[in-house]
Amino acid sequence: MSAVTDEQDKSADEPLRVGVLGARGRMGIEVCKAVDAAPDMELVAMVDQGDWLFNASDAGAEVVVDFTTPDAVMDNLHWCIDQGISAVVGTTGFTEARLERMRGWLARKPGVGVVVAPNFGIGAVLMMQFAERAASHFESAEIIEQHHPRKLDAPSGTATHTARLIAAARAAAGQGPAPDATRDEVAGARGCDIDGVRVHSVRATGLVAHQEVLFGATGETLTIRHDSYDRASFMPGVLLAVRKVRTRPGLTVGLDALLD
Amino acid sequence: MSAVTDEQDKSADEPLRVGVLGARGRMGIEVCKAVDAAPDMELVAMVDQGDWLFNASDAGAEVVVDFTTPDAVMDNLHWCIDQGISAVVGTTGFTEARLERMRGWLARKPGVGVVVAPNFGIGAVLMMQFAERAASHFESAEIIEQHHPRKLDAPSGTATHTARLIAAARAAAGQGPAPDATRDEVAGARGCDIDGVRVHSVRATGLVAHQEVLFGATGETLTIRHDSYDRASFMPGVLLAVRKVRTRPGLTVGLDALLD
Amino acid sequence: MSAVTDEQDKSADEPLRVGVLGARGRMGIEVCKAVDAAPDMELVAMVDQGDWLFNASDAGAEVVVDFTTPDAVMDNLHWCIDQGISAVVGTTGFTEARLERMRGWLARKPGVGVVVAPNFGIGAVLMMQFAERAASHFESAEIIEQHHPRKLDAPSGTATHTARLIAAARAAAGQGPAPDATRDEVAGARGCDIDGVRVHSVRATGLVAHQEVLFGATGETLTIRHDSYDRASFMPGVLLAVRKVRTRPGLTVGLDALLD
Amino acid sequence: MSAVTDEQDKSADEPLRVGVLGARGRMGIEVCKAVDAAPDMELVAMVDQGDWLFNASDAGAEVVVDFTTPDAVMDNLHWCIDQGISAVVGTTGFTEARLERMRGWLARKPGVGVVVAPNFGIGAVLMMQFAERAASHFESAEIIEQHHPRKLDAPSGTATHTARLIAAARAAAGQGPAPDATRDEVAGARGCDIDGVRVHSVRATGLVAHQEVLFGATGETLTIRHDSYDRASFMPGVLLAVRKVRTRPGLTVGLDALLD
Repeated sequence: MSAVTDEQDKSADEPLRVGVLGARGRMGIEVCKAVDAAPDMELVAMVDQGDWLFNASDAGAEVVVDFTTPDAVMDNLHWCIDQGISAVVGTTGFTEARLERMRGWLARKPGVGVVVAPNFGIGAVLMMQFAERAASHFESAEIIEQHHPRKLDAPSGTATHTARLIAAARAAAGQGPAPDATRDEVAGARGCDIDGVRVHSVRATGLVAHQEVLFGATGETLTIRHDSYDRASFMPGVLLAVRKVRTRPGLTVGLDALLD
Repeated sequence: MSAVTDEQDKSADEPLRVGVLGARGRMGIEVCKAVDAAPDMELVAMVDQGDWLFNASDAGAEVVVDFTTPDAVMDNLHWCIDQGISAVVGTTGFTEARLERMRGWLARKPGVGVVVAPNFGIGAVLMMQFAERAASHFESAEIIEQHHPRKLDAPSGTATHTARLIAAARAAAGQGPAPDATRDEVAGARGCDIDGVRVHSVRATGLVAHQEVLFGATGETLTIRHDSYDRASFMPGVLLAVRKVRTRPGLTVGLDALLD
Repeated sequence: MSAVTDEQDKSADEPLRVGVLGARGRMGIEVCKAVDAAPDMELVAMVDQGDWLFNASDAGAEVVVDFTTPDAVMDNLHWCIDQGISAVVGTTGFTEARLERMRGWLARKPGVGVVVAPNFGIGAVLMMQFAERAASHFESAEIIEQHHPRKLDAPSGTATHTARLIAAARAAAGQGPAPDATRDEVAGARGCDIDGVRVHSVRATGLVAHQEVLFGATGETLTIRHDSYDRASFMPGVLLAVRKVRTRPGLTVGLDALLD
Repeated sequence: MSAVTDEQDKSADEPLRVGVLGARGRMGIEVCKAVDAAPDMELVAMVDQGDWLFNASDAGAEVVVDFTTPDAVMDNLHWCIDQGISAVVGTTGFTEARLERMRGWLARKPGVGVVVAPNFGIGAVLMMQFAERAASHFESAEIIEQHHPRKLDAPSGTATHTARLIAAARAAAGQGPAPDATRDEVAGARGCDIDGVRVHSVRATGLVAHQEVLFGATGETLTIRHDSYDRASFMPGVLLAVRKVRTRPGLTVGLDALLD
């Protein structure tokens, strides 16, 4: 965790120097472990509330990962961009205004990249991509999401987002509403309606976080299901972003673009 | 399709002589095919509206299968019982009063059996039995039923019945409500509530008739799923009842008792 | 089923004139029904063994659909291309040599398009596309295909093809073999090995045609499942190809390209 | 953790006094936590290698739970039975000879009960019960078990045991082999054969421990699926046995009997 690296001399096989901001938080701890275990990365700085950001630059961090708080993240990113350090950001609370401010900072630092993603689960991101892509080819589409019973909201944010993607793809293809002859419904049986897509939220002890997207056409159904058991499932997405962020100067929103 | 059988002389390997009432209806046609294909049965009479019931007795039917209408079925059964012919009945519309009348007729004919079943799908019946049996061992239970979009009611009758069986088993075991911290719900997301059990109804082109019962306890879930594609799926249950009805004098309601 | 159309005068809303070759075969009958039911198409010719191909051109067919036999299909297509009629082909038995010959014929008829597809099930094609795309992002990938017990081959052609797509995507991404510590195996338990991807073939009465592709990474799995119940499920893919073939001069192999 | 209880005076609401043998092992730790959290139990002794068994009797344990080793368990149980303490045993390595010896000890202590179970997962036990019960009603039955890739054996012990139960139920009902027309098989595609039942073992990162039993008849399938994510899933079964063992004098093998 020392000495500054001279970028020009860096050989291709030298590990990427990574700093973690929010290193003692729930996600930060997982990120530190994942970076430490990655053979092509070196964990050079673990920074949390009360620590100096300069620890990261002094240690020669080339990329920082930020899982901090909406209050702290903009200052952190401003400083990173100024220092020429690229950033991968999982902190929440990004509005379009915040993204716009960041684009301004990045415009003045052409070599620096920032990836902001609301969800680093590669499986979840692929599920949403596939759902969006399949949507226009099927007459019917419904979502069943299943979570542990301590969850406060129904449907989940991921389910709502998926429903909107499907609805938009259907609208773009000129599809009308999915067929549904239900006349006699016990209230709630048909789930909730998100932009015309029915979403069902199951809550049960023993479940973790699961989502099924069901598409139907005459004589066939296509189902895309994602099961997530563990916070560790976000780490491959974080590492992917860390590896790619310096090759994508400017701002990238969402993991999607990095999966191609 | 002729001559009366002398019961006493009947050898064990002689096929069982079966008549079908409602033989030209949707279900009746399937029953005729199934009886005809069964090596241990002989289809001796196909009776429908306008035909004489005596065709069945003249042909020596030992068992009749009735898939007719609520209007016709009581007369048919009265006649069968009088003739000493056992019956397997899939016709709907049975009230407790009707069952009671039939018990009266059967009391005077000790050798005759009648099986009345609302559902001859062995898979569906087992699903309900298993759900009832599992219910008291799990903190959570929800039902997801999935059908073609031409279905008028939601949830399905089978789902409602299953939910009631689960609710009764939970109550008998002194279980309280399943845990559910939902505070922020888009209306309908959590499904409908049948005696405290949440039921979700999915409707999509390409589906036929499916039901999943999900039970959850700490660290595990148990799922019982039934998929039905075809009216033919009821035939094994009908044939099972035909084979067993003469060994069960009196009235039997439901396929359950025959599955043990 | 008569009169030649003057292409130049054709208004945008006039239905597309479609002929079917192999019209009395299992698939041909379904195609005729589907074309007949499509509001933007007119079924102008039904041709089968013993009929003249000229029936199709005389009736002004703009597109023909060919579900015939490997023996007949090349002559049919040569004739169509010569006549300036585009074709959608579901007949099997296409080798690279055959495709090459067809490319030669098409080179001399720049306005004509031919789509040859081994599988017109949109759901199946999307499943394969998604599987290919997900493959490089997950450490593990296995396929479970489930069919009726009358099927002669195991695994299915679709499963084998999917496994190869996954294997190629893994190789291209430099992935090694999926982790598997199995030391003590009852022969066959781990399925068969198709280019390093394990495939499991389930056979049971009551199943039709189903496939599940399972991807796994730390803490999460992504499952893509296709259920097909009916030959009718191929028709949307056939109609899609009929609608698009004239906008894609030359040879198109596979439905994939038409789904974008 | 003191004073001996006078059994006669014990009121119905006093918590059951439970000791744990093997308290510092992986399972033992979970058992201690579960007993401690149960409102109707008191954890009165935690005994491990090097501790005196008398700690349990001195502390007034009415029931002990033994998750120790095959080497230690018989001595532990002999001592418990002598002391009049009932026991719930999850330790492995029980042969018929060992069970027979235990029956001898118990015969001389009529008030004492011992429950020995190879699997305390209520979900898994119910899955096996249901599979056994459904077996004779379906023409086809196959098992798909799915585990993490560090597992050494394929198929799993639970899958093998389930297959044997199904095979025995089929044999008892006089069923022949399930239909299977496979002629052209890539070696292993159809899984392994356990007493005539096909079993498929999937191994993938991200999976924990899952099993699906699929039954098929004409036009329908019935699927029983168990998903287990966590060692904690065994605790409800252990607690159930602790609550019931004193009401079942003598030896009980398997959790099944306690679930009725």
